[in-house]
Amino acid sequence: MSLKTKAYSLGLDFGTNSVRALIVDISSGQEISTAVVNYPSGEAGIFLDPKDPNLARQNPADYVETMVKVIRQALSLAKRTRKNFLPEEIIGLGVDTTGSTPLPADQKGLPLAFHDEFKKNLNAQAWLWKDHTAFAEAQEITELAAKEHPEYLARCGGVYSSEWFFSKILHCRRTDPKVFEAAYTWVEITDFIPALITGTLHPNKIKRSRCAAGHKAMFSEDWGGLPAKDFLGKFDPALGELRNRLYDRTYTSDQSAGQLTKSWAKKLGLKPGVPVAVGAFDAHLGGVGAGVAPGKLVKIIGTSTCDITIWPNDQPLADIPGLCGIVDGSVMPGYFGLEAGQSAVGDIFNWFVNSIQPGGPKKGSHEELTSQAAVLLPGESGLLSLDWNNGNRTILVDQRLTGLLLGQTLHTRPEEIYLALIEGTAFGALTIVKRLQEYGLKITEVINCGGIAEKNPLVMQVYADVFGLEMKLARSSQTCALGAAMAGAVAAGKACGGYARFEEAQAAMCGVKPASFKPRFGHHLVYQELYELYRQLHDAFGTRDWQGNLYHLMKDLLNIRDQQLEKARKMTSKKRSEKKKGG
Amino acid sequence: MSLKTKAYSLGLDFGTNSVRALIVDISSGQEISTAVVNYPSGEAGIFLDPKDPNLARQNPADYVETMVKVIRQALSLAKRTRKNFLPEEIIGLGVDTTGSTPLPADQKGLPLAFHDEFKKNLNAQAWLWKDHTAFAEAQEITELAAKEHPEYLARCGGVYSSEWFFSKILHCRRTDPKVFEAAYTWVEITDFIPALITGTLHPNKIKRSRCAAGHKAMFSEDWGGLPAKDFLGKFDPALGELRNRLYDRTYTSDQSAGQLTKSWAKKLGLKPGVPVAVGAFDAHLGGVGAGVAPGKLVKIIGTSTCDITIWPNDQPLADIPGLCGIVDGSVMPGYFGLEAGQSAVGDIFNWFVNSIQPGGPKKGSHEELTSQAAVLLPGESGLLSLDWNNGNRTILVDQRLTGLLLGQTLHTRPEEIYLALIEGTAFGALTIVKRLQEYGLKITEVINCGGIAEKNPLVMQVYADVFGLEMKLARSSQTCALGAAMAGAVAAGKACGGYARFEEAQAAMCGVKPASFKPRFGHHLVYQELYELYRQLHDAFGTRDWQGNLYHLMKDLLNIRDQQLEKARKMTSKKRSEKKKGG
Repeated sequence: MSLKTKAYSLGLDFGTNSVRALIVDISSGQEISTAVVNYPSGEAGIFLDPKDPNLARQNPADYVETMVKVIRQALSLAKRTRKNFLPEEIIGLGVDTTGSTPLPADQKGLPLAFHDEFKKNLNAQAWLWKDHTAFAEAQEITELAAKEHPEYLARCGGVYSSEWFFSKILHCRRTDPKVFEAAYTWVEITDFIPALITGTLHPNKIKRSRCAAGHKAMFSEDWGGLPAKDFLGKFDPALGELRNRLYDRTYTSDQSAGQLTKSWAKKLGLKPGVPVAVGAFDAHLGGVGAGVAPGKLVKIIGTSTCDITIWPNDQPLADIPGLCGIVDGSVMPGYFGLEAGQSAVGDIFNWFVNSIQPGGPKKGSHEELTSQAAVLLPGESGLLSLDWNNGNRTILVDQRLTGLLLGQTLHTRPEEIYLALIEGTAFGALTIVKRLQEYGLKITEVINCGGIAEKNPLVMQVYADVFGLEMKLARSSQTCALGAAMAGAVAAGKACGGYARFEEAQAAMCGVKPASFKPRFGHHLVYQELYELYRQLHDAFGTRDWQGNLYHLMKDLLNIRDQQLEKARKMTSKKRSEKKKGG
Repeated sequence: MSLKTKAYSLGLDFGTNSVRALIVDISSGQEISTAVVNYPSGEAGIFLDPKDPNLARQNPADYVETMVKVIRQALSLAKRTRKNFLPEEIIGLGVDTTGSTPLPADQKGLPLAFHDEFKKNLNAQAWLWKDHTAFAEAQEITELAAKEHPEYLARCGGVYSSEWFFSKILHCRRTDPKVFEAAYTWVEITDFIPALITGTLHPNKIKRSRCAAGHKAMFSEDWGGLPAKDFLGKFDPALGELRNRLYDRTYTSDQSAGQLTKSWAKKLGLKPGVPVAVGAFDAHLGGVGAGVAPGKLVKIIGTSTCDITIWPNDQPLADIPGLCGIVDGSVMPGYFGLEAGQSAVGDIFNWFVNSIQPGGPKKGSHEELTSQAAVLLPGESGLLSLDWNNGNRTILVDQRLTGLLLGQTLHTRPEEIYLALIEGTAFGALTIVKRLQEYGLKITEVINCGGIAEKNPLVMQVYADVFGLEMKLARSSQTCALGAAMAGAVAAGKACGGYARFEEAQAAMCGVKPASFKPRFGHHLVYQELYELYRQLHDAFGTRDWQGNLYHLMKDLLNIRDQQLEKARKMTSKKRSEKKKGG
């Protein structure tokens, strides 16, 4: 038994449907206990609107209620699994969340949804990251920024998204002015949670996350913080006014947001005064937990992907077209955080297996298709696919794109399509890496994590073969929560038994699995040829500057689709079945 | 009871797997009886070679044996179904067959395969239309003709096919010189059958079909018949020599090939001396049986399609790029016969249902998918497909093309893909009609027949909506055999109780079904927009002259595929499973 004092950190990971707590030994990164609690409201934690598929909101009370439960469960499990474990040995807390997930708050910084008047108003809840009700406002913001302040867009790939902070607030202003007027300010949940439990909720005290502000609210010190008041005021004078009640300073996640209050310490079963790190988005702390460093790319591969890397902020870095975000300190202080991603990866495989349901009974499972696809040589099927079933986040930043499968014959089999879909996502991933490299970021190591990376070795082997690079797997299977716990340890600092810097925490607390996927040279050569063909399709359908004229094609089809869906919605089902063809 | 003498005609339709006999009342076209007998040899009547997927041969003895059986069955059924029916009332016989299906014959015109020496030699059998062993020779012939005699290719779409007469003979010369040398001549089975039963098999007597010669052997009176001796001699001097032993006259199917000999009449149970029409290919007589006329297009829609129309031969007609054949008299005397086609239609739907097997158990049948697809509006799915899973016969004449599906999202459902595949074939069909119209052939009426046209009303309704034209169905469901019977009636002529001309036979004997599919204006408008998009994809991937550079893409993929398949063939299955990805 070691004589050294034990020190632990607790990471809280607020996901889309549930919250996870992870208690980690900060000397080794060993994961002592973990617990998950689902949000109780709505459908799997999300309020939906049957009349509007774009709407996705969450009950702020869910975060609070489940946080208490999940921490208590993790503590109780830690006591059972580690002899002599004491909650008092937890020296720091870190928080990561989804985002941009802002909520309207009152003058004390409390969610409007906590007031009876607004309890049932969907617009007074947290606007979940995947809420797309503000698509029109996003376009408006993009257009005006492109004209008047192109610098605002340069760091977020050239397009301001409907998922982001100001789009959502402006949409609220226009569709529910009562909520907008009742809101003193708006708070990302990644700022709300640490502020709540450290008693710093008040708008004058709350420390805003650099990560959230920089990636989703066009915040940069280069132009004095948030976008200018007169810029915001052009959309609506009230939005310009709101700017004064938001913030002009932001903090990186090595900073403490405050200390755990006595009353929250009691509720949570923790020691009062424990430092709580400034919050950040899940993928960014996931990158930290997977060991991100300059030259190392972390790929979080699930239903979609998030790619994270960093670059020293004292070295020159150009704006990189098509990247979702480049923000100084968003991942780790001292570095630009770079975020990219693919809008669908696992979702495409799931679509094929669950919606198309190929292969007849019993032959179309992921396992079965994977096993059959694994023996195919690259290119053997003659198929090629574009991975755009859910649009393209990086490098095209275009949701009005769709999937494409090419090369099918009368002999094409389901497992060949399955492999082509995997290869399509691999080519999409390589396109991101190539874009980074074009702008001087040499990527020499790829560390993968997330459900698909952990569960489907075929995907990882194809990625290794396509990239011509070893695919490593992060040691932890909960890198986001681990990254949050590391932020807790760094926010605590050396004096409280933690770490002075993220780099030190990484050296001690994270790593890769011993087994990895190595590229096969022969396969890589064929994939290089196939990638050239993929890239031609990609440029032909995805870019304006290609010499052909197919850029409009997917968009035209979507426009026709939208118009026909509108028509279909207006038809009663009776009328529709009368219209049945060949009846 | 009518006092008028009854007159019947018998049509023989030699298909790929079986032969059909049809006895028709020539005054009304009423079908008295029909019978089908399968060819006994090989697999479903076809000799295959496990080592060479391109090979497809047939036993000439099968045609003879099954012809006797099928005629006797049809006669016996006619006696049962029509009171007082007498075989002597059959006044003419007509024959249609697959083609180009040539066989090597001896000096008497008998198949070499009838000699013991060659009985088991696959090269001495009939070379079935879909035999593709001669792909290299076809390319060679195309290249030399393009250089020295472009006129030879102008009538067959610019490309000489591996399925055709001289490609097959040249391949035989090169791979089995013994068979080539033993063959005095080569005979299409469409010439062989009528000659056999009329005792005109001898190479000096046999009447060669205009249809077969013109479409598959580059025969035209414009250049003195078959291709020049010195042209053929350049591939091999012996091929040049063979030309002298082939033919320099051809006949249309209104002509009699001869009269039924006594001995054949006895074998078949018919009256001796009955005229037998000169043979023609199935689709051409199918066109006649469906009522083809100038301005009327007959579509025979099955696994693939054949489109047939005619044009008065005293009116100017340019060569039409991409059309498989334009031959004076190939369908009816006095008209150019025009043949076009799609390499796969029903085969694409079958591929989706049988190979991809979408929709899980019980939800993926043609019936189920049709019923779900029938309520979709045009464009509602956002999908668009190219119908090239088996290449493109017309208008691109390119087998090195493949399928393409574009527009899929994470919500795309199997029935939406099914409809998109149907629409893709409809757009392909419209592209053929538009090409005809560009060259002055106005198509005002479309008559459909074949399995898909008869069985799938959704396909017909989509075609009507896409074309903006009524889709009619031929009254007969065996238009090829009916056309053959009509040829018999015309070959018999007025003097023998038949007809003087095909037009008269058509007026009396064929028609369309009362029910048809009418275009829906709203649907047609949307399909016009979608067709524009289809056409852009079509031109981008299928033509060299498009401003982009995607023409090579499907071909590059096929080249990589072929190279990888070759590699895979060389790997033992053990080695292959060792190479398994992610193992």
